[in-house]
Amino acid sequence: MKIVRMQTREGIRYGGVEPEGVRVYQGTPFVAWEPTEVLADFEQVRLLSPVFPTKVVGVGVNYACHAEQTGRPPPRTPIMFMKPSTAVIGPGKPIVLPAGSEEVHHEAELAVVMGKVARNVAAEDALGTVLGYTAGNDVTARDLERQDEQWVRAKGFDTFCPLGPAIETEYDPRNDFSIECLVNGEVRQAASIDDMIFGVPELIAFVSSVMTLLPGDVILTGTPSGAGPIRDGDQVEVTLEGVGALSNPVAAR
Amino acid sequence: MKIVRMQTREGIRYGGVEPEGVRVYQGTPFVAWEPTEVLADFEQVRLLSPVFPTKVVGVGVNYACHAEQTGRPPPRTPIMFMKPSTAVIGPGKPIVLPAGSEEVHHEAELAVVMGKVARNVAAEDALGTVLGYTAGNDVTARDLERQDEQWVRAKGFDTFCPLGPAIETEYDPRNDFSIECLVNGEVRQAASIDDMIFGVPELIAFVSSVMTLLPGDVILTGTPSGAGPIRDGDQVEVTLEGVGALSNPVAAR
Repeated sequence: MKIVRMQTREGIRYGGVEPEGVRVYQGTPFVAWEPTEVLADFEQVRLLSPVFPTKVVGVGVNYACHAEQTGRPPPRTPIMFMKPSTAVIGPGKPIVLPAGSEEVHHEAELAVVMGKVARNVAAEDALGTVLGYTAGNDVTARDLERQDEQWVRAKGFDTFCPLGPAIETEYDPRNDFSIECLVNGEVRQAASIDDMIFGVPELIAFVSSVMTLLPGDVILTGTPSGAGPIRDGDQVEVTLEGVGALSNPVAAR
Repeated sequence: MKIVRMQTREGIRYGGVEPEGVRVYQGTPFVAWEPTEVLADFEQVRLLSPVFPTKVVGVGVNYACHAEQTGRPPPRTPIMFMKPSTAVIGPGKPIVLPAGSEEVHHEAELAVVMGKVARNVAAEDALGTVLGYTAGNDVTARDLERQDEQWVRAKGFDTFCPLGPAIETEYDPRNDFSIECLVNGEVRQAASIDDMIFGVPELIAFVSSVMTLLPGDVILTGTPSGAGPIRDGDQVEVTLEGVGALSNPVAAR
């Protein structure tokens, strides 16, 4: 099932994608989730980010190819960082280039959306705590990332965490699905998610050994090689095989 | 006014400290805030963290004396990091030492609690966006901080962000109020908040130039020199002149 979140005249609602349109649901996929009689036309639906998390936890340098690109040795344990929830935007919303950075990069990522409270979860039980998967763009001001020791500023600007378009619940992240980033239709990143150094079960186990993950929380699982600059007027698309395509324009302030 | 948040039989409520007890309020100090007729005895009140933020933004190495202790040059711009909301605990709740760290440190801090949405706020307007101030303990696994390049794991464990006991709304952070940390009654950190490299107005301006701050969000403003180890059975107290004392026991897992 593909789950979306949308703005309707009655407020924010979750929906399920069906062949003829988007089925509007009552409640949320985390609690009290019931289909209604309402089926919205695809053209009428105004998509929001498919989830509004209490936290977004990222993992740095988690593709062997990206580790090579950065010249870093592959990490022994996952390198965690956080993006604020205020950075989250939905599909179609502009990524706004901030003042003070001359080098903003796209980073195509598989985003894990948690479905349950997870604390000290074993890797073998981890996928059972997941609601589903969506595409994410871990937008990063590369020059500020180099300048600061910590990555929070470089990765934490408003609009720097596009997520969407939908949460795919029927997806096994242990396959070799492709992940791509296109800028203005040109492929800039292309890899398979089985090139991850730490797989999704290991990442959930690791993060949940530190902090309790809540329903709706998001783990960004790292980006493959090829992260590069985006500029005013660009169109950036993150395409995840089996999940969908997340497209966002880029705008100057 | 001193604002607290507490567990009552009717649920979580905010309150205002009065000479004879804690006045229970309807609503929250952010919206629709009204006193009730109920005055709770101090002995009966079970305090929670005075706020449950959508994000906690920290600032590293923000006291000249701490910069000297760490051997780092004072930063040119504030070094931002984040702690997850799941790390927040209230007064009296145990700081739980995690597996995998042998060196957990206290860090006494002045915590700013935002009262309004703040985005690109000028330093001269910044204090008007604040609800008040409370004591914070930026508990840090120093060995993991050294091991990881990023600080999120070292600072992000559940229970690693004690806040409280109350939010003091009548407080001017541009004074030379004292900040202290006591472990088992012994002074380990003692400084004045006017030793901060970047003051509260500048920090709010800086952070809000990156990310939108929401009502209830917390900025931890850095710790003075003297951060040191805490062990199972210790009692840690952060004392802020004009605000109050935040006390937490330390417990092994």
